[in-house]
Amino acid sequence: MTTAPTTLGQRELALRERASQVIPGGMYGHMRVTDFSGAHPQFMVSGNGCRVTDADGREYLDLMCGWGPVVLGHRHPGVTKAILDQLEHGDCLDGTSPVAVDYAELLVDTVPSADWAMFCKNGTDATTTCVTIARAATGKRKVLVAAGAYHGAVPWCSLRGQGVTAEDQTHLIRYEYNDLLSAERAAAEAGDDLAAIIVCPMRHDVRRDQELADPAFAHGLRALADRTGAVLILDDVRCGHRLHLGGSWEPLGVRPDLSAWSKALANGQPLGAVTGIDALRDAVSSVYVTGSFWYAAVPLAAGLATLRELRNGQALPDMLRTGTRLREGLAAQAAAHGYEIRQTGPVQMPVLYFAGDDDLSLGTAWAEAAVRRGVYLHPWHNWFLSAAHTDADIDAILDRTDQAFADLRDTGS
Amino acid sequence: MTTAPTTLGQRELALRERASQVIPGGMYGHMRVTDFSGAHPQFMVSGNGCRVTDADGREYLDLMCGWGPVVLGHRHPGVTKAILDQLEHGDCLDGTSPVAVDYAELLVDTVPSADWAMFCKNGTDATTTCVTIARAATGKRKVLVAAGAYHGAVPWCSLRGQGVTAEDQTHLIRYEYNDLLSAERAAAEAGDDLAAIIVCPMRHDVRRDQELADPAFAHGLRALADRTGAVLILDDVRCGHRLHLGGSWEPLGVRPDLSAWSKALANGQPLGAVTGIDALRDAVSSVYVTGSFWYAAVPLAAGLATLRELRNGQALPDMLRTGTRLREGLAAQAAAHGYEIRQTGPVQMPVLYFAGDDDLSLGTAWAEAAVRRGVYLHPWHNWFLSAAHTDADIDAILDRTDQAFADLRDTGS
Repeated sequence: MTTAPTTLGQRELALRERASQVIPGGMYGHMRVTDFSGAHPQFMVSGNGCRVTDADGREYLDLMCGWGPVVLGHRHPGVTKAILDQLEHGDCLDGTSPVAVDYAELLVDTVPSADWAMFCKNGTDATTTCVTIARAATGKRKVLVAAGAYHGAVPWCSLRGQGVTAEDQTHLIRYEYNDLLSAERAAAEAGDDLAAIIVCPMRHDVRRDQELADPAFAHGLRALADRTGAVLILDDVRCGHRLHLGGSWEPLGVRPDLSAWSKALANGQPLGAVTGIDALRDAVSSVYVTGSFWYAAVPLAAGLATLRELRNGQALPDMLRTGTRLREGLAAQAAAHGYEIRQTGPVQMPVLYFAGDDDLSLGTAWAEAAVRRGVYLHPWHNWFLSAAHTDADIDAILDRTDQAFADLRDTGS
Repeated sequence: MTTAPTTLGQRELALRERASQVIPGGMYGHMRVTDFSGAHPQFMVSGNGCRVTDADGREYLDLMCGWGPVVLGHRHPGVTKAILDQLEHGDCLDGTSPVAVDYAELLVDTVPSADWAMFCKNGTDATTTCVTIARAATGKRKVLVAAGAYHGAVPWCSLRGQGVTAEDQTHLIRYEYNDLLSAERAAAEAGDDLAAIIVCPMRHDVRRDQELADPAFAHGLRALADRTGAVLILDDVRCGHRLHLGGSWEPLGVRPDLSAWSKALANGQPLGAVTGIDALRDAVSSVYVTGSFWYAAVPLAAGLATLRELRNGQALPDMLRTGTRLREGLAAQAAAHGYEIRQTGPVQMPVLYFAGDDDLSLGTAWAEAAVRRGVYLHPWHNWFLSAAHTDADIDAILDRTDQAFADLRDTGS
């Protein structure tokens, strides 16, 4: 048995013990590593570019990028400078910082479907605000949602039953992603009470292959919204500003009425946004949505710096190139080691499954081997590339994933 | 007419014009100044201690403190150092920073009703998580909520109808704050389906006098929860860590099962928290609540630094002393100028109304005069003191509010 050259470190174990006393289950939410791995560290102390370091000083090549937010790399100098400069003036003031206007202008200039923008903290804030605006605009209640799609972790959209009442989701009607007929049936079920259709730019549900949007499906949803008067909401929280700066459906030529953004906006600073079309301005002004920190200047300054860097730089084409290099390398390695794998979704947001691995045990063992070899990746949530990943970094990652495939083979899996 | 020695500045006006193009209504939420004033600047560029500066370079003595979060003063050196130190290592990593454990331990050590803690971004995240945990723990649905109480700005607890469906609030049953009989009636209405009672430590609804909790009411809610098996949730988002470090009902000897925290936790960094009792650990682990930035290290480091400062320093007694000085000074000024006013709630979270001012026009005119004289305060939302306010700052504030009363008198109001 050679698959575990390292086990969890002493500081990691000590932190887990302390956490178990003061945090239920030792951690919560998507970052509770015991839900997906026996080998991933729960605790991280630093990040730099495409590398992160755990509490025991072990460095990992990072394929999660903070689970999405880090699009330019950890501690990107330009974004860090914007953060430090803004901190010298102020952050949480009594009024909005002018940087909110600068950033809203740049978003509107960047996103063709955006005539305006507003800002919040979580992706869930953004999706919830979109639904609220759509209901206020239409005076209707029903919202079409793809079955299994993640739009946040609050009762109205929760995928878990615990703590959720039936009424929280009474007005949701489910359709199947990439199945336009199912959406049209759902719209028919809503009758004259249809407020909105919410959709992710691709199917990125966890524990299954990712699925790009069929262009006919995307155009069909747009036409369905136009025909029914429903508001088309694009949940670009996970994909936004990693695939296309104008919005993830721009390459398809399909423009939403509202878009929800978060994750990559500010390279890790806490920020969400809603953008939308002129026709919805009055509805926005009629709803009351707010938060104590929604106006704070530092995350907005980071968002502005991030978007300027993304617009001026090579970040998006770079991620496309390095993501392709990673995908091709993994495919070759799997074949060489005699494993059949599936890699799906955009190369900048990869995920890898093993054929026939219904219980994900093989994928989990491989991900655990990878993390022991120094590559931080996930067995069943998509990964994220950043602009900090160079070709050399991808090659270093591939060296280690090759070892991980070998480790897997050595265990006889 | 001498009440307007200054009007809105040129940069403010230019920013408003730009904002009107790219942000619906020019702004949203509680920071949309046009909802409460014709004189308050919408835009702020910096803060230092208890002073903030607008886009035209005008400095104000700050009585809003970022609408609550800033409890130690803007750019507090100790908190700023913690932010900068953490930024040098990393913020939004793949795992949790060890500072989350340090901070959870200190919260549990500080708050007698807390056996554990978990972290989020918004106050609304914290209240929503509390309700979700309570429903998961009890398997029941009904939640007792005080009529008119603010617990966040999302559909389940929204005080506005726009974009909200009846089903969002189906399982809320209203009681009257400080009216135990009304809460008992509400509990009876819930029957055997009562999950939780949520309550703020005081009545701080906007546009009306604040009201401290009657001790018999607080103890009565505790007994009602015990008798029915409901979870008692204290929404300490607005008051928490400004009135009493152990929780705002510690002085009453009433301990909640769950507490929602945010605002003052991290002196302006975006952070919320839920704390609770051991019996609810399993329920916490059973629900799925999360957010992309909930694990970010910088706000947690700021929270830790803030709580250490609050524990070791004189911040709370200082705010009690300066708040009393402010209240007594305002009372004397009003009397001297021939105005009858009401000042209610704790002195650290003041609010001031004029007698007979049902439409709040007099209060608004006075608040506008105050802001023109260089004191930033609000006509109908409670203000906030910080530990950065010295006696001399309070005296400087009182000099200006005295002028504001004189301005009001000069207009013949």
